[in-house]
Amino acid sequence: MSVPVMINAFDSRNAANLDERTRDLVERRQRVLGQPYRMFYEEPVHFDWASGVRLYDAAGNAYLDAYNNVPCVGHCHPRVVAAIAEQAARLNVHTRYLDESIVGYAERLLAHFPAETNRLMLTCTGSEANDLALRIARNHTGGTGFIVTANAYHGISHAIAAMSPSLGLNVPLAVDVRTVAAPDPRLAGSPEAVGAFFEREVRAAIADMQRHGIRPAALLVDTIFSSDGVFSEPAGFLAGAVAAIREAGGLFIADEVQAGFGRMGSHMWGFQRHGLVPDLVTMGKPMGNGYPIAGVVAREEVLERFAREARYFNTFGGNPVACAAATAVLDILRDEDLLANASKVGAHMKAGFEALSKRHDAIGDVRGQGLFLGVDILGADGAPSPGVAGDLVNALRRRRVLISASGPLGHVLKIRPPLPFSIADADELLQVCDEVLATL
Amino acid sequence: MSVPVMINAFDSRNAANLDERTRDLVERRQRVLGQPYRMFYEEPVHFDWASGVRLYDAAGNAYLDAYNNVPCVGHCHPRVVAAIAEQAARLNVHTRYLDESIVGYAERLLAHFPAETNRLMLTCTGSEANDLALRIARNHTGGTGFIVTANAYHGISHAIAAMSPSLGLNVPLAVDVRTVAAPDPRLAGSPEAVGAFFEREVRAAIADMQRHGIRPAALLVDTIFSSDGVFSEPAGFLAGAVAAIREAGGLFIADEVQAGFGRMGSHMWGFQRHGLVPDLVTMGKPMGNGYPIAGVVAREEVLERFAREARYFNTFGGNPVACAAATAVLDILRDEDLLANASKVGAHMKAGFEALSKRHDAIGDVRGQGLFLGVDILGADGAPSPGVAGDLVNALRRRRVLISASGPLGHVLKIRPPLPFSIADADELLQVCDEVLATL
Repeated sequence: MSVPVMINAFDSRNAANLDERTRDLVERRQRVLGQPYRMFYEEPVHFDWASGVRLYDAAGNAYLDAYNNVPCVGHCHPRVVAAIAEQAARLNVHTRYLDESIVGYAERLLAHFPAETNRLMLTCTGSEANDLALRIARNHTGGTGFIVTANAYHGISHAIAAMSPSLGLNVPLAVDVRTVAAPDPRLAGSPEAVGAFFEREVRAAIADMQRHGIRPAALLVDTIFSSDGVFSEPAGFLAGAVAAIREAGGLFIADEVQAGFGRMGSHMWGFQRHGLVPDLVTMGKPMGNGYPIAGVVAREEVLERFAREARYFNTFGGNPVACAAATAVLDILRDEDLLANASKVGAHMKAGFEALSKRHDAIGDVRGQGLFLGVDILGADGAPSPGVAGDLVNALRRRRVLISASGPLGHVLKIRPPLPFSIADADELLQVCDEVLATL
Repeated sequence: MSVPVMINAFDSRNAANLDERTRDLVERRQRVLGQPYRMFYEEPVHFDWASGVRLYDAAGNAYLDAYNNVPCVGHCHPRVVAAIAEQAARLNVHTRYLDESIVGYAERLLAHFPAETNRLMLTCTGSEANDLALRIARNHTGGTGFIVTANAYHGISHAIAAMSPSLGLNVPLAVDVRTVAAPDPRLAGSPEAVGAFFEREVRAAIADMQRHGIRPAALLVDTIFSSDGVFSEPAGFLAGAVAAIREAGGLFIADEVQAGFGRMGSHMWGFQRHGLVPDLVTMGKPMGNGYPIAGVVAREEVLERFAREARYFNTFGGNPVACAAATAVLDILRDEDLLANASKVGAHMKAGFEALSKRHDAIGDVRGQGLFLGVDILGADGAPSPGVAGDLVNALRRRRVLISASGPLGHVLKIRPPLPFSIADADELLQVCDEVLATL
């Protein structure tokens, strides 16, 4: 039996090495959950409670969370918990009844967007948001062709998995999907060349589509290119590619599931660093700090035909409890000044990893913006090493620091902590990395 | 501009007739939400809080809920609210970490299933559950052809909307989807003929697929056929159609989003009334009493190839808060004996509508099982009348009873209350219907 590609996956053949309590739960899990489920780490983690940027196991050990962007304002933030508890006790209905909560939330959220992107639709997951954006883009443009990056991940619905090459060779791309190289300065030749390089890639994909009689519908990109290995520089590099897709009659869809809600520090959304106004913006993971809520922000005119020819109803999407949780997240981002924190701590952490790279050959290129960093991990031969990255991830886990790896080869350390991550937390992460790297 | 078909949709051109507070909120809503959103009723409802089977507006008026199956154990049930609040305050992580809650819930849920359907996968919405079932069925069978009923509704992802003909003529079906007539005794000739009729329909669809070189993947049916107009009799009629799809190498997917979780009264799942064991079972709406949780229960062997070639991760799906809510729902269904209540009150209500049909020409055929009834509404000419159904729905809303209509023509009253609906609640619904019908 071939083993599917997943970075940092637990291998159940190693279950015998686990302590009895863990092994028992792993075995129970395997008896009732579908086999497509995977866990992280050589030795799975099992938590009892969490708060801020720490998770605690049943023995009371604290783990530092340098990985999870869903609890963006911190695990179990009391204001989010209170908002959920109060609204769940009062009223939870669907969007076919009139309700203040979704209207108030939409007004609050849209205030963080350019004036042109002025309409909100809510779903429960980022996959649903990208899937809805796909339906809208097809409907508005009359096209079916989508362009994504070579190792993109946009979600797990049938249509979106077919434009998520990072799911692996056994999940086929749709016939009208084209991939382009990631905006990697090393492929482009230099950081300055990234914009022109990426634009050329997109123009070539458009030409190939057209040669096959496929009308372009959209360019869909994660604005921090996380599964491709984290590419954020230089700010502004997306402009040429976006102009190219629009010239061809397609839309620009900014997938903000990873970069959005202030993680970049300098801006609320990744696309803002590129000086662009997208046609559709999708968002998810951090939106409700873990309550299932996601959405699409659109230019009004892009929704017109879809509104005339179809309708949209998502039973749980935009319910009052989801909107209460999401409103609390916006309140906390503002009141705790978390964008400024992301800028400050992100810059400190990036400088720290750059300093580590001078002392450890295993640390290569350090990329990213705000509290989203990608760090290349290299082998003794100086080549990208998913093996060393895996060893580092598991060594950090044994030292109770949560992290994972990403990128097409799995050699990019993905650092994406909750936004209240402090300078002291960053120093702890850097210190443990330093110690662990000395032992690898 | 053509108006899209949606039964019982609010027409914003009528906003001028609303009271000032409602009009203001409707206008704010229209400025920020995507135009594909629709509300119910000539005059939208706007609630302040809810409990049990009642919703209350800001003026303190109580509305009887005879429509909403999502709050299946009653609106804002305190045990569900407490479970959500406690777990949200403690820990909310994803399924790549080991956690007791999803394992415990899976064990509890699977105990309500036949032994062969022994694996659970969790999503956030019923659409995602059907979309995942589609991916699994395609992967397992190697086929792409799906059979659904003529006015089926299975969800709103791109792939599932393309097998949901009830979304209307502007949402095209996929080229490898075939529709069959609903299992309507009037089309079959008699109740006894329904099974053979539906089997013939499915066999013809399979033959047509095969003639076009399409390999069948699955027969996908809502086991109460709600959007087709509610067809439940005679129990067992699905067996022939299911045998036919299996002979052709396809799977049987039971969509329990509407019928599941005890609404049928006699059984936990609609498929059980047909004496069948499906290959895949999808579920959603009532699963977490409004917390976004949905899922797929599968035969282990059906997941094997998908597990080998793909993997599945849904960021929010199966998180500990979702599992806490869903576990509370199972507890309450048991402790409050809600299946027995659904049987008892459903039978009383069905008899009540049958009695009304003798006194009001507008009431035609009465169908359904447990707390899911479909009642045909007829015009003065004795023909199905969506107009009279709409008048009745809006008249009931003015009398503060919530209901809607369904079916291919929109003339079927859809009665689907929270499961704690009592005999007194049913009598109130019947009484108000009686009075309103006398005025139409």
